[in-house]
Amino acid sequence: PTGLFLVAGPCLIENRQMAVAVATELDRIRQEEGISVIFKGSYRKANRSSASSYTGIGDREALEILCEIRDVFDMPVLTDVHETSDVELAASYVDVLQIPAFLSRQTELIVAAASTGLAINIKKGQFMAPEDMALAAEKAASTGNRKIMLTERGTTFGYHNLVVDYRGLPIMADSGWPVIFDATHSVQLPSASSGVSGGDRRFLMPLARAAVAAGVDGLFFEVHPEPSNAMSDAATQVPLDQFHAMVRELMQLQGCMQSIREAFHSPNQSEES
Amino acid sequence: PTGLFLVAGPCLIENRQMAVAVATELDRIRQEEGISVIFKGSYRKANRSSASSYTGIGDREALEILCEIRDVFDMPVLTDVHETSDVELAASYVDVLQIPAFLSRQTELIVAAASTGLAINIKKGQFMAPEDMALAAEKAASTGNRKIMLTERGTTFGYHNLVVDYRGLPIMADSGWPVIFDATHSVQLPSASSGVSGGDRRFLMPLARAAVAAGVDGLFFEVHPEPSNAMSDAATQVPLDQFHAMVRELMQLQGCMQSIREAFHSPNQSEES
Amino acid sequence: PTGLFLVAGPCLIENRQMAVAVATELDRIRQEEGISVIFKGSYRKANRSSASSYTGIGDREALEILCEIRDVFDMPVLTDVHETSDVELAASYVDVLQIPAFLSRQTELIVAAASTGLAINIKKGQFMAPEDMALAAEKAASTGNRKIMLTERGTTFGYHNLVVDYRGLPIMADSGWPVIFDATHSVQLPSASSGVSGGDRRFLMPLARAAVAAGVDGLFFEVHPEPSNAMSDAATQVPLDQFHAMVRELMQLQGCMQSIREAFHSPNQSEES
Amino acid sequence: PTGLFLVAGPCLIENRQMAVAVATELDRIRQEEGISVIFKGSYRKANRSSASSYTGIGDREALEILCEIRDVFDMPVLTDVHETSDVELAASYVDVLQIPAFLSRQTELIVAAASTGLAINIKKGQFMAPEDMALAAEKAASTGNRKIMLTERGTTFGYHNLVVDYRGLPIMADSGWPVIFDATHSVQLPSASSGVSGGDRRFLMPLARAAVAAGVDGLFFEVHPEPSNAMSDAATQVPLDQFHAMVRELMQLQGCMQSIREAFHSPNQSEES
Repeated sequence: PTGLFLVAGPCLIENRQMAVAVATELDRIRQEEGISVIFKGSYRKANRSSASSYTGIGDREALEILCEIRDVFDMPVLTDVHETSDVELAASYVDVLQIPAFLSRQTELIVAAASTGLAINIKKGQFMAPEDMALAAEKAASTGNRKIMLTERGTTFGYHNLVVDYRGLPIMADSGWPVIFDATHSVQLPSASSGVSGGDRRFLMPLARAAVAAGVDGLFFEVHPEPSNAMSDAATQVPLDQFHAMVRELMQLQGCMQSIREAFHSPNQSEES
Repeated sequence: PTGLFLVAGPCLIENRQMAVAVATELDRIRQEEGISVIFKGSYRKANRSSASSYTGIGDREALEILCEIRDVFDMPVLTDVHETSDVELAASYVDVLQIPAFLSRQTELIVAAASTGLAINIKKGQFMAPEDMALAAEKAASTGNRKIMLTERGTTFGYHNLVVDYRGLPIMADSGWPVIFDATHSVQLPSASSGVSGGDRRFLMPLARAAVAAGVDGLFFEVHPEPSNAMSDAATQVPLDQFHAMVRELMQLQGCMQSIREAFHSPNQSEES
Repeated sequence: PTGLFLVAGPCLIENRQMAVAVATELDRIRQEEGISVIFKGSYRKANRSSASSYTGIGDREALEILCEIRDVFDMPVLTDVHETSDVELAASYVDVLQIPAFLSRQTELIVAAASTGLAINIKKGQFMAPEDMALAAEKAASTGNRKIMLTERGTTFGYHNLVVDYRGLPIMADSGWPVIFDATHSVQLPSASSGVSGGDRRFLMPLARAAVAAGVDGLFFEVHPEPSNAMSDAATQVPLDQFHAMVRELMQLQGCMQSIREAFHSPNQSEES
Repeated sequence: PTGLFLVAGPCLIENRQMAVAVATELDRIRQEEGISVIFKGSYRKANRSSASSYTGIGDREALEILCEIRDVFDMPVLTDVHETSDVELAASYVDVLQIPAFLSRQTELIVAAASTGLAINIKKGQFMAPEDMALAAEKAASTGNRKIMLTERGTTFGYHNLVVDYRGLPIMADSGWPVIFDATHSVQLPSASSGVSGGDRRFLMPLARAAVAAGVDGLFFEVHPEPSNAMSDAATQVPLDQFHAMVRELMQLQGCMQSIREAFHSPNQSEES
């Protein structure tokens, strides 16, 4: 066990065949590498840049595909909810409910999701300072839920651009909750080309390695059999056939980080002492 | 008629007495000054920094107070909605539905609100470029609704700070929809002091005057009889007894701007020509 | 007297004929409008984006043209200095020495310029908070020089973009020194197109009007007979034949602001009281 | 050889004893660890926040101490120059001339420094996009000098704060010049406390590890026997007795990165293919 887990899957559950193809490959990777994987897939895109963007195949259809992946592969599945009214339906199909970054200040949504008792992943708003994520986690914890994860996915940096502040990883870890680095959305360029979000896949690995080295509990990637044909985030999803090599590289780095931690940081010592 | 309208009222409908006191003063101001006023009040705060923050007196109680103000003062009233399920209830009490800035990318919420046929005010997300607000307005307009307003309230600028980019006012005006400048939230310092948003009231008037001079259709202010005792936004609400003088100052400036436009800008001429 | 002065002229003294043409027009404007004008021209560009950018016609040649304008038109002239070794030469030809924004933290340069006894204009660094300009002014004032001006020209906002924070105008004014708004460089887009700084002339007037309304002592514009043929800042210099109308518009607004100040702000009262 | 070099030393040459103590420790570290070290020390601070800040013991005195370290320890030494007139003097004492970040757009300074034939380290301006550093390097290379290094030290992020954009490391590496990560100044909080720059030493190691993992050729740290008594940058210099352990940790990580590069990235392959 490397002490690192993955959240991975397609941006959107576009159809059963694609979702199963991704899950099959993720299942193979976790068995060969011995890494935990949470399968990620949105059942509906509620916050597209433009009203004409594609939003999905239907809620129940998509959720049933997620549920099938959970059962067939014995793999936990995650999806995101956008309103409190989404929570009950989604919760009956998945293991982890995710709060989207734009919604990280919506108290009622966080509380509704956390009240299901399922694990909760709260993405840090593009407009939030990392220390403020402790307050978001407290909203979830106020329900008694202790399965809370916090995800970095970049901060507003001028227009149509995001920057990852790596100081935010140890700051969020101070809250005591596991911290995930979302490489896919961190390299996004919001609404950069006439209403469609772009991004640069080239920076995925440098930023993901930087996150492992700075210190992180999980990594989040969107993967797709053919990103150029994806219904969303075409610029930043990882081609499925390249993902295994990326995971191995990051696990090798994580192994090194564990040796470093053992050698240089005693367990009861904080980094600065 | 000055060609300028006001959106004003307390951050939150804390109780009937306070709301009526504010409405009484706003009614007096509009009669003495001949300016249109939309009464603003949230019936519930859904996106507080911290779960322990106060959220309201009850939805129906607050909405009925808004409705009473509409009827007694014959003044249009505005409130904000946070989920599609809020829309039907709120729509039965008010004239204008407002989409909060954090939710300006939630397509379904915008469409649900616009589908009521009521006027819609979409606040620009702190994470959005001004040109992208045309896409948000298109989402509302896709329902056939043509009563759409766009509101500037500051853009993420580092942590715990916002900046107003005044280039955004003409950019948003290019969309063809009326543009409002929200002075109160533009001077906010998000989550600046341990989970409570602060701000500096001192900059309200310089920024509001700058907006009138750059060119804007409406101004948005939160006013409160005793800001220091307000349940929210204590740092940035305007003391009720100071608001009339502020309005007069801004109307005088707007009158000057109208003379300038007549003298220097022919109606069919864009600014740059 | 409107209580507003202008700093205006070409970005670079490209040749005598052009500089005199600009000065002739500025002289006509100040006489017709009764406004003070400081003629601005760089004698050398020392901080171009690229080494191959044009830097000037020669220091003495350019400075002599500035000096001729001062003498012929009886108009104060301003130029910028980049190193302490520039100060003595430049000081013998001009009335105002300007510290470029990139150099606003160079203590020795500020002190050397201020020690000449000439008026000093310090531009706010794109990387500086407005309150820190009081420290820059103190460096100049430490020489006994009391003729100090501070100029806003935009703050770094992501890459290749600047934003003007209008809160900075009253903050800088708190230092007690006159505050100038540089419209030309505030609309610049640094190094936006392959090593050449761009910008959008369209925002010059909305931002300049906003500055007058927020409150400012002077306005700074670069003007050029044919901006499209300018050796620098082609995108943001004002066409010479449009400048008079712009000045009249801004003076009319300033006249209105003076009426507003008299009516709403007693002289010994600060804005917030 | 790890393929990683260090630039390290005190912010300012405060006195001979301190500088020699630092050099002695750096010499011990490089011998024990087999890593190249460039000794860094400013001979004068020219860009302090405030005029009353301490600037140094005298130029020649400080440069002679640097020269002595070079000779006694056979270690290359680096210092920074602020004006072209500094170049000749400094160049006669040191091996590497550094262009400060605020001055990274000063063409004449870069050209003067590069013309000495010494190695040149150009720090990326807090206001610059990483791709624009190729233009700065070209200015140096235009003199025929091919010993050019580029250093990341954080980008303006709101007021009184910097953020490191790790996408900038591969972008700068594309220029073909070695890229250094300056951990010390990247964690600085400019002018954060009434005219004195602060910072948080706690983030030094997470950010330095992230840089090694993202990919970098050198690391830059300021070290001081007693940071709390340092004449400058007290908040961010590394205590001398902690530096060896930090270097060993970063070298272990770099060793891991070399294994990863050999396993996953063939030499003629770019990261994205």
